[in-house]
Amino acid sequence: MKKEEFTGLLEERAKEAERIVLSYLPKGEGPQAKVYESMAYSLESGGKRLRPLLMLESYRLFSQGQKEEWVHPFMAAMEMIHTYSLIHDDLPEMDNDELRRGRPTNHIVFGEAMALLAGDGLLNLAFETVADALQQHAEDPVYLSRGIKAFGILSKKAGCDGMLGGQVADMLAEAKGEPCGEKELLFIHAHKTSALLQAPLMIGAVMGGASEEQVLCMERIGYNLGLAFQIQDDILDVTGSQEKLGKPIGSDEKNAKSTYVSIHGLEKAGKKVKELSDLAERELLQLPGDTQFMKEIFSYLTERDY
Amino acid sequence: MKKEEFTGLLEERAKEAERIVLSYLPKGEGPQAKVYESMAYSLESGGKRLRPLLMLESYRLFSQGQKEEWVHPFMAAMEMIHTYSLIHDDLPEMDNDELRRGRPTNHIVFGEAMALLAGDGLLNLAFETVADALQQHAEDPVYLSRGIKAFGILSKKAGCDGMLGGQVADMLAEAKGEPCGEKELLFIHAHKTSALLQAPLMIGAVMGGASEEQVLCMERIGYNLGLAFQIQDDILDVTGSQEKLGKPIGSDEKNAKSTYVSIHGLEKAGKKVKELSDLAERELLQLPGDTQFMKEIFSYLTERDY
Repeated sequence: MKKEEFTGLLEERAKEAERIVLSYLPKGEGPQAKVYESMAYSLESGGKRLRPLLMLESYRLFSQGQKEEWVHPFMAAMEMIHTYSLIHDDLPEMDNDELRRGRPTNHIVFGEAMALLAGDGLLNLAFETVADALQQHAEDPVYLSRGIKAFGILSKKAGCDGMLGGQVADMLAEAKGEPCGEKELLFIHAHKTSALLQAPLMIGAVMGGASEEQVLCMERIGYNLGLAFQIQDDILDVTGSQEKLGKPIGSDEKNAKSTYVSIHGLEKAGKKVKELSDLAERELLQLPGDTQFMKEIFSYLTERDY
Repeated sequence: MKKEEFTGLLEERAKEAERIVLSYLPKGEGPQAKVYESMAYSLESGGKRLRPLLMLESYRLFSQGQKEEWVHPFMAAMEMIHTYSLIHDDLPEMDNDELRRGRPTNHIVFGEAMALLAGDGLLNLAFETVADALQQHAEDPVYLSRGIKAFGILSKKAGCDGMLGGQVADMLAEAKGEPCGEKELLFIHAHKTSALLQAPLMIGAVMGGASEEQVLCMERIGYNLGLAFQIQDDILDVTGSQEKLGKPIGSDEKNAKSTYVSIHGLEKAGKKVKELSDLAERELLQLPGDTQFMKEIFSYLTERDY
């Protein structure tokens, strides 16, 4: 696939994913309408829609074009969870960030109390969305069996043994004020970054009818892809251009933050990204369906300079 | 039932509910263990265990002693959601409370960042617990059908059209710095207080096999009980003794907070509590099973002086 062709296709699919995600956001009315506005502000604030997009692509590998609406509510729930984690992560007691993707963060616009509740609201809404989907298909044993597994994966990967656990470990490491060791760093990346890539890949597979073995394969792919993505992020914080990245570089060093780069150096970090991407790709090729586009996404994520 | 008999029974049942709830809290290990400690601190911090207790009693009305473990995970999820809402409500950007039930609040002990994540963790764990329960009973269509309904009720009543919506409206009303009107006050109470009483009553009924009509009856009971409970709370803030209540009185007036009492006066407030409790009791008597103990709980909640 040519680069322009891929870029166009990616943009199109991201828009598709975004449309689907946003369709699950209720229009708020009544005295609590403001919280829906605050939730919408962050959910609509762009981003690559990577997680719902990956979920849909994973679904397509297994479902052969059947009943795509089966996976839609999980795409929405996935992006709601990702978005809530960003809102809470930006709060003053966490990273205290005032800008995200070039826009003021939620608490800057809506105040800290509302941002807290909007984050809670999105996490809750993710599960309301899943509950609605299960209730709508209550008479369909195939959907129920898959949907309940997907619900389990979503809640586990978002929770304290998943993404949230990574946030906790990261926050504690920063609070200590000294660089953390390699083992701890791996834990943080595997949970904070990989868990929310594993979830969409696995849920897409489950909803599309993949075997247990194939779902486990997706879990390994998400793990390696997440680590590669994170190390590439750390490399770009050293070698990248502020212009292309849209954020200041050198922030890890400034914050005395441990990264794969600070521990092993740039050269080894680059090799590690390659090694992890190759691993992810190799596993991907064993899966059914047309994996070409997914492979291109992997390369896009791990070879990017932006 | 004599007063001492009731008090003894209530204590016993609260302990039973507590034992069940706490059994669903994982022992944390690894770099994220601290968040489990923080979650446990608040989940173990006593309270009347009113919501899981009501859920179990509601279940018992319909299930005739069968398979009580069916409702256990929902009891735990219910109390986790109640507890997360308290942790976040106590944060500086919300009520900024340093004491709850005589103990330092979560963020005073664990810091604000950890309290934020522990709240998120409990909300997430509530749904992990529900997902586990559904997966464990994946082969049982009766359980699944009831469990999915219960999941829907839990997520709706906790969300932006339920408890969280009440929190939002309450926070916005306080931020305005002027007393709110009666309609807005009713919205706040119906959502902030009633929603999390409706949920356990309804879920207990659903899991116990109640008809749709009976579940709706429980919803109305929870609505009226919640309002009565809240107005009684407001009355006690004026007439109560600090010693019995274990918290300062007069705080509503100090904070220029609208309450049913500030709008209608003490006498009308007292009558309203009686009217709402009678309504709740009358509906309760139409339900099957031995409703005596539940009736006593209602009186205990709406006639209390502590």
